[in-house]
Amino acid sequence: MAIKITVFNEFHHEQHDERVKKIYPNGMHGAIKDFLSENPDFEVRTVTLEMPEHGLTDEVLNETDVLLWWGHIRHHLVDDEIVKKVRRRVLQGMGFIPLHSSHASKPFLSLMGSAGNLHWNDDPNISSILWTVVPSHPIAKDIPAYFKLETEEMYGEPFDIPNPDEIVFISWFSQGSVFRSGCTFRRGNGRIFYFQPGHETCPTYHDKTVQKVISNAIYWAKPDFTVSSVDSRHFTKDLSK
Amino acid sequence: MAIKITVFNEFHHEQHDERVKKIYPNGMHGAIKDFLSENPDFEVRTVTLEMPEHGLTDEVLNETDVLLWWGHIRHHLVDDEIVKKVRRRVLQGMGFIPLHSSHASKPFLSLMGSAGNLHWNDDPNISSILWTVVPSHPIAKDIPAYFKLETEEMYGEPFDIPNPDEIVFISWFSQGSVFRSGCTFRRGNGRIFYFQPGHETCPTYHDKTVQKVISNAIYWAKPDFTVSSVDSRHFTKDLSK
Amino acid sequence: MAIKITVFNEFHHEQHDERVKKIYPNGMHGAIKDFLSENPDFEVRTVTLEMPEHGLTDEVLNETDVLLWWGHIRHHLVDDEIVKKVRRRVLQGMGFIPLHSSHASKPFLSLMGSAGNLHWNDDPNISSILWTVVPSHPIAKDIPAYFKLETEEMYGEPFDIPNPDEIVFISWFSQGSVFRSGCTFRRGNGRIFYFQPGHETCPTYHDKTVQKVISNAIYWAKPDFTVSSVDSRHFTKDLSK
Amino acid sequence: MAIKITVFNEFHHEQHDERVKKIYPNGMHGAIKDFLSENPDFEVRTVTLEMPEHGLTDEVLNETDVLLWWGHIRHHLVDDEIVKKVRRRVLQGMGFIPLHSSHASKPFLSLMGSAGNLHWNDDPNISSILWTVVPSHPIAKDIPAYFKLETEEMYGEPFDIPNPDEIVFISWFSQGSVFRSGCTFRRGNGRIFYFQPGHETCPTYHDKTVQKVISNAIYWAKPDFTVSSVDSRHFTKDLSK
Repeated sequence: MAIKITVFNEFHHEQHDERVKKIYPNGMHGAIKDFLSENPDFEVRTVTLEMPEHGLTDEVLNETDVLLWWGHIRHHLVDDEIVKKVRRRVLQGMGFIPLHSSHASKPFLSLMGSAGNLHWNDDPNISSILWTVVPSHPIAKDIPAYFKLETEEMYGEPFDIPNPDEIVFISWFSQGSVFRSGCTFRRGNGRIFYFQPGHETCPTYHDKTVQKVISNAIYWAKPDFTVSSVDSRHFTKDLSK
Repeated sequence: MAIKITVFNEFHHEQHDERVKKIYPNGMHGAIKDFLSENPDFEVRTVTLEMPEHGLTDEVLNETDVLLWWGHIRHHLVDDEIVKKVRRRVLQGMGFIPLHSSHASKPFLSLMGSAGNLHWNDDPNISSILWTVVPSHPIAKDIPAYFKLETEEMYGEPFDIPNPDEIVFISWFSQGSVFRSGCTFRRGNGRIFYFQPGHETCPTYHDKTVQKVISNAIYWAKPDFTVSSVDSRHFTKDLSK
Repeated sequence: MAIKITVFNEFHHEQHDERVKKIYPNGMHGAIKDFLSENPDFEVRTVTLEMPEHGLTDEVLNETDVLLWWGHIRHHLVDDEIVKKVRRRVLQGMGFIPLHSSHASKPFLSLMGSAGNLHWNDDPNISSILWTVVPSHPIAKDIPAYFKLETEEMYGEPFDIPNPDEIVFISWFSQGSVFRSGCTFRRGNGRIFYFQPGHETCPTYHDKTVQKVISNAIYWAKPDFTVSSVDSRHFTKDLSK
Repeated sequence: MAIKITVFNEFHHEQHDERVKKIYPNGMHGAIKDFLSENPDFEVRTVTLEMPEHGLTDEVLNETDVLLWWGHIRHHLVDDEIVKKVRRRVLQGMGFIPLHSSHASKPFLSLMGSAGNLHWNDDPNISSILWTVVPSHPIAKDIPAYFKLETEEMYGEPFDIPNPDEIVFISWFSQGSVFRSGCTFRRGNGRIFYFQPGHETCPTYHDKTVQKVISNAIYWAKPDFTVSSVDSRHFTKDLSK
């Protein structure tokens, strides 16, 4: 059965910045949909900030196995009610993959409980090397020990996140920084994978290895099965007899 | 230098339920203040829900090293702006010790990112035994391998929290449940210790071992030093030369 | 492709204790093989302490995806060279599932680095309830929120193990103890699941839910793919250019 | 009361390599003792491989609060009986700080259970920058967000260790690698801090920030109190009544 994927994009830079439009003529969500759609296991839908309810209606969310999220300078325009629904769905079991600047998005921060602060430098001359820290992790399948992105925005430590369950990738940046660039977290029944690469002025989502990481992460984050409700409840049985 | 402690209490049951008033005539916050005040290292203040800003003004929060929190049926009346301030102070380094039913309080959930659901049973005939899982942990100092509370509300697994950094105590309940009853988390610069015992109709905060755990947790959670700002910032230095 | 499973048993009690022989006439390894063999995904082999090299020849180990281990009073008779080989294979990616008293087995302790100490009480009147702590974990698939074993040896905290990656089950024992009874660890490329139930005088491995947990753990622990060698090596490339 | 520190050094390079002798005329253990001894809280002893029992007699080990360890090409000459004693003392509560190439030392690996493999490059032209990942950690007290070592051996990911309890530092290396260079682990009652810097041909232990990290780690790793025995034992009490 196909894995149902929804890709959210704030879709701002691609409409207002010629450099970005040139790299992603159909938006980053379009580029991501393109490579994911080559996989017959994946059923991909895209939604954007400007759509009613940002495209994240109850129906769409309820049918989504894994939600990818790209936001940057319009985090504040994401409706708080939608954020609550996204969070609830993750706790119910939906996988969640915040990309790049979505470290500061409302859904990610509401699931982390920390501030997500970091150092950054978008100098286009900075290159990045991602190192695989846990080679046996499902997200690292067929990913080499390291791979290079010739240009990528620097995100640097200290990165204010809770202790991740696992750190799959750590990035090196040519200007001298390091970053925990691929981190897993469980919240409720949902699996979360934060992945750092993807600055809007860099052709990152056209990189085959980046694409492979994202595909791996989708397989890893999808719910394996439906967990029956674990709401708080008055539990009156005496099991001790 | 004294550790500055603020004890928040919603202070409802003690004013409206004779059973509770009898056990805690000055409120649970009063009982907690009483035993903490015996320690010359501790400087204790109490605040309640009904005070303006719940007593948690900027001045009070900024002067607080460790905040204890007891809430239950009035979580929804805690002002969202105060919750944001509490969360920010924890991320800056203030220790935070949510007690018992504060597993469902707004500040705790905003720091966890999960739902905090659990099983519960307030049958007064249920007893609880707390087992020390990490005997070398500072919070377990001078705490025996196990100690019993003759009556305590059952809280049972599954408890919907992120994977704790450390589980210091696990509780046994006579009716057949178990619970991760003493859990540590780091969020930003702040240390958090959730501690399960403390149902309002039980004399739990008069128990000497419970008091010792709370005192230990305060020493553990207090900030060791002030961390200079780690806000997100444009970092333009080239360190590679 | 079938998952290749090897079940190691010290096979002592079943040959020397009538009570045990009655419950497990073909040994515990035989009982475990029986229920695993019903699954067409599983290809099951059994080996015992008394076999040359305990049956764990290089050939057998190299062909094993997941190794189950049951030992108790003959841990000291397990050859140190075999222990080294088992440990090496786990680090290479073989799954490892130590059962019950194998908390004190040489392979498990060599992979943990801690002492594995605990409390125990084999009074047959003690019952146990296992609670599912992470309902969404693959090992908890189709496992209810709790299940009871009418008789099982008590193992109690404090259990001297490193902080597990995840705690999937916590057990309640009727005499008043609790135990982290289902714990996961990653070592090298290998996944480890320690599972507490399985005292030799109890019919535990005939319990359908216990069988289901073990089957789930095998799917979870099997290597997903072969990790290319990550031996220490002189790495002379300059990637910074 | 003074913290009793023992510094173990294999003390080989300093006696056989003129470059090393020049940097550390009294051995690395001598240099480490020198800076630690300036702190009146510390009582420092040094021992070397060539001493009987490597200087690690029962008396010395029993009186040691924190053991520092530096080994490299003579790991195999460390007596297995001494390794067992060191491990046992750590499990009892002694702090343990393996430095640099001690990632492959017998005591460290016996406590980790993994292989400790990594990439390395001792080209003296490689510089390193250490980034503080958890600024509020006691080991990061008074340590800046980053600090540079003009020459240090590259150690690179993937580093085959169990998931650390906390990662305090991550290192950047000028040739393109990254490394989890400051990691904490608990084993039994003992706290372990692995710290990467310290190649024998580099003046690393003369660096003030490196010295400060090591001092901080000693305060953090020392046992806070003596844990009463937690050996496995037959626990016959019925606590349920």
